[in-house]
Amino acid sequence: MGYIEKLKEKLKDISKYHQIMSLMHWDLETGAPERSFEYASNTLGELSGKIYRMETSEEMGDLINKLTQKNEYDNLSENDKRIVDLVKKDYERYRKLPEEFVKDLTKTTSNAQKYWVEARKNNDFSIFQPYLEKIVKMSIQQAEYLGYDGNRYDALLDMYEPGMKTKELKGIIEDLKIRLVDFVNDLTEKGTKPEEDFLFEKYDLNKQKEISIKVLELMSYNFKAGRLDVAAHPFTIRINPGDVRITTRYQEKDIRDSFFSTVHEGGHALYEQGISNEFVDTPLYDGASMGIHESQSRFWENILGRSYDFWKYFYPEMQKTFDQLKDVSVEDFYKAINIVEKSLIRVDADEVTYNLHVMLRFEIEEALINERIKVEDLPKIWNEKMKEYLDIVPENDSVGVLQDVHWAHGSFGYFPSYMLGNLFSAQFYHKMKEEIPDYDKMIRRGDFSSILNWLRSNIHKHGKKYEPNELLRKVTGEKLNVDYFMDYLKEKYSKVYKL
Amino acid sequence: MGYIEKLKEKLKDISKYHQIMSLMHWDLETGAPERSFEYASNTLGELSGKIYRMETSEEMGDLINKLTQKNEYDNLSENDKRIVDLVKKDYERYRKLPEEFVKDLTKTTSNAQKYWVEARKNNDFSIFQPYLEKIVKMSIQQAEYLGYDGNRYDALLDMYEPGMKTKELKGIIEDLKIRLVDFVNDLTEKGTKPEEDFLFEKYDLNKQKEISIKVLELMSYNFKAGRLDVAAHPFTIRINPGDVRITTRYQEKDIRDSFFSTVHEGGHALYEQGISNEFVDTPLYDGASMGIHESQSRFWENILGRSYDFWKYFYPEMQKTFDQLKDVSVEDFYKAINIVEKSLIRVDADEVTYNLHVMLRFEIEEALINERIKVEDLPKIWNEKMKEYLDIVPENDSVGVLQDVHWAHGSFGYFPSYMLGNLFSAQFYHKMKEEIPDYDKMIRRGDFSSILNWLRSNIHKHGKKYEPNELLRKVTGEKLNVDYFMDYLKEKYSKVYKL
Repeated sequence: MGYIEKLKEKLKDISKYHQIMSLMHWDLETGAPERSFEYASNTLGELSGKIYRMETSEEMGDLINKLTQKNEYDNLSENDKRIVDLVKKDYERYRKLPEEFVKDLTKTTSNAQKYWVEARKNNDFSIFQPYLEKIVKMSIQQAEYLGYDGNRYDALLDMYEPGMKTKELKGIIEDLKIRLVDFVNDLTEKGTKPEEDFLFEKYDLNKQKEISIKVLELMSYNFKAGRLDVAAHPFTIRINPGDVRITTRYQEKDIRDSFFSTVHEGGHALYEQGISNEFVDTPLYDGASMGIHESQSRFWENILGRSYDFWKYFYPEMQKTFDQLKDVSVEDFYKAINIVEKSLIRVDADEVTYNLHVMLRFEIEEALINERIKVEDLPKIWNEKMKEYLDIVPENDSVGVLQDVHWAHGSFGYFPSYMLGNLFSAQFYHKMKEEIPDYDKMIRRGDFSSILNWLRSNIHKHGKKYEPNELLRKVTGEKLNVDYFMDYLKEKYSKVYKL
Repeated sequence: MGYIEKLKEKLKDISKYHQIMSLMHWDLETGAPERSFEYASNTLGELSGKIYRMETSEEMGDLINKLTQKNEYDNLSENDKRIVDLVKKDYERYRKLPEEFVKDLTKTTSNAQKYWVEARKNNDFSIFQPYLEKIVKMSIQQAEYLGYDGNRYDALLDMYEPGMKTKELKGIIEDLKIRLVDFVNDLTEKGTKPEEDFLFEKYDLNKQKEISIKVLELMSYNFKAGRLDVAAHPFTIRINPGDVRITTRYQEKDIRDSFFSTVHEGGHALYEQGISNEFVDTPLYDGASMGIHESQSRFWENILGRSYDFWKYFYPEMQKTFDQLKDVSVEDFYKAINIVEKSLIRVDADEVTYNLHVMLRFEIEEALINERIKVEDLPKIWNEKMKEYLDIVPENDSVGVLQDVHWAHGSFGYFPSYMLGNLFSAQFYHKMKEEIPDYDKMIRRGDFSSILNWLRSNIHKHGKKYEPNELLRKVTGEKLNVDYFMDYLKEKYSKVYKL
């Protein structure tokens, strides 16, 4: 057996343990009984320790060493070269972090979550503050262990968005922020806000579920290789290559929540279901990055799922299912689900204001990691930025600085992916429309096959074969360009708000 | 660390893998998507291989060796002695089976199941015959590897019912068979068969589910440490010590199926939830035997769940839930769910005829293992025995010799547990009534707490601390006595059938 085959055997082994952990995570989030958690968390902890040991073993190091010798490496196929590169990158990253540090970080963040919950419940940031201080300190330490060229935040950002740099992000944001703030002001001051009351009547939960299944079928989500369940915080998870599961949630008094959560997660799931099978059990069997993954969910949720053409096709199905919509026209429904608002909560934000919420978080966390601000000042800073970007101030920290769990998880560097997802999706969309001449007509017919084929052959099938920026250039012919996103917003919302 | 602590560490490790496999099994049976099966089965195969290697390792052998030295062993607590005994027994059993043989048997039986399904679908025993022949041959080989004193079948029986011997079983059956056949004839010839049509009206599935949950709550099944799901073949499974899950199934046109499946599985689950926590992660954290486990499910399903006193309490709840029962009296309902019939299918059999179905299977498998009969003659032998015991002949093999999956699984030696469960349950019941003076009254009040406490302190909490016959004697003061079962049947059914 050659070295590359030996490596693949090891990766297959590791993959089995990931599959088991995925099933356990899915189970815990979709209805495992309360008393199961303690035992399951324990087992999960041991399994991640096991994976860590497998990924950082001397044997693994030897194999990587052998495979990166020039004569060995040059003889590998392109795919195998990429596999070796990715395994090496992870190996080196893990080896840079002392085992004690990893354990301590895991313990610290899992402990911090409890206090985050309590702080949120009591509207009291000070409960969470000491834990967040420790996490920030450890995240700085983590970045130091990992190393970086320019900005310390780069070390963390790279875990979620490989190749992206803080400097580039700052450039994007500087440009985009002004344009977004102006546009939001135009819409809310000069535009006409649509009616929306009918969205909040009582909608039968079973019928909402039927609609969720229908739209997933329409998207060609493969139910023979997946299932739909309920979770408090919807997510998509791959259990194994034949099993990519979606979760959603149903609110009786908001018809939007389940629908758009389902379509969003459906977008993630189509990506996972579309990765080439030849990559199974290797690091290539994954999304290109968090941002690229989010571009898929956001495309389906917003660009397609909140488009007029889509509703022109799908609305009769909704009217048939829900009597409450009998006297609501498709135009009014379409406008209602596209209301733009200066609101407090990121996860409820519309597609125009959403990125402002993300920028604020990025700016804060980048400053924290570079020690330019202090944890104790976060509530003040948060509120000031909210006032500046969205002209709204949270009445308490629970709907302000305490609203997201990410920092309690220690996931510094994650937030930018949400924004990048939106930007990528608009850039992909622009290219897609160039290459699928009948795009609009097909959506109006409820025929998404050309769209899905385009996504599959341009994005999905490649998995993690390319770096995100490489993939973007390969597909669209250029690097990240925020104009596509702004153009998309302007064209759509000027009409919705009759500007 | 002493040897016993080292052993316990290993057992804890093994237990983690069992927990993972349980979750995967549960998932596959309760709705995992079709395409998940191939990958999950693969992972399950590797996990069982891993457990096998852990259980038969040289290290494990050394520890057992050390712990069974007189001076070491004598210093162990009673519980630890029992742990060592059980581990040793399993270790020796596994070591007797060559790894190649185990793999071959697993492959053979998993393959055979496909042909069993096909044979059943096509009503054609010959499709299954060659696979069953191979399984019988391998089961004989297995018994030879394992070794036995008297009857070759003992080696297999002991895996499910430790300590039970073929000779003893034959003695029990010889006595019981005649008494049962006579009694069934009395009932069906001289008795008055109750009405039952109302059981087969259309019963709303959601309401059936509500009733299932209500009765489990009434039984004190702990939903915080378990959940109820749907499976084609209902089962109970422990995921971990805080998580014992039940499955049931709902038939729209039979009100009995979901109810009694739920109560049956609830009985298993109460046993699992009641084992002393000090046994967690050791072989004592298990039922005493398959037969004792079945005694718990059968007690709740039949002795309690099909009793007049129970329905006197619970029937108003049923009438409130189902309009179809509005004009049916509790007496008529009680009689309908206790109809005795000479029927073809074991799993649908009433508690009077059930053991006859089991005896027939035991007689056939014992003769197969001892090579007194041939697989090719099974359909004929089956039908002859059905005629003899139940005076009914299957019109085809699908409702005859092909009805159960057990032989395709290679589970020779399992069937007797079903009968023993019935016999144990009646013997326990007799003792329970002696020790709980207000037994009947409490059931009529829907108060099962004394009963559950009795079961917990006499049976559940002990787990696998005692051999089944030892437990039976400890609880009831005597060895297995079929009179209790016959007395119970006679008293109950003479009334139902107005003999």
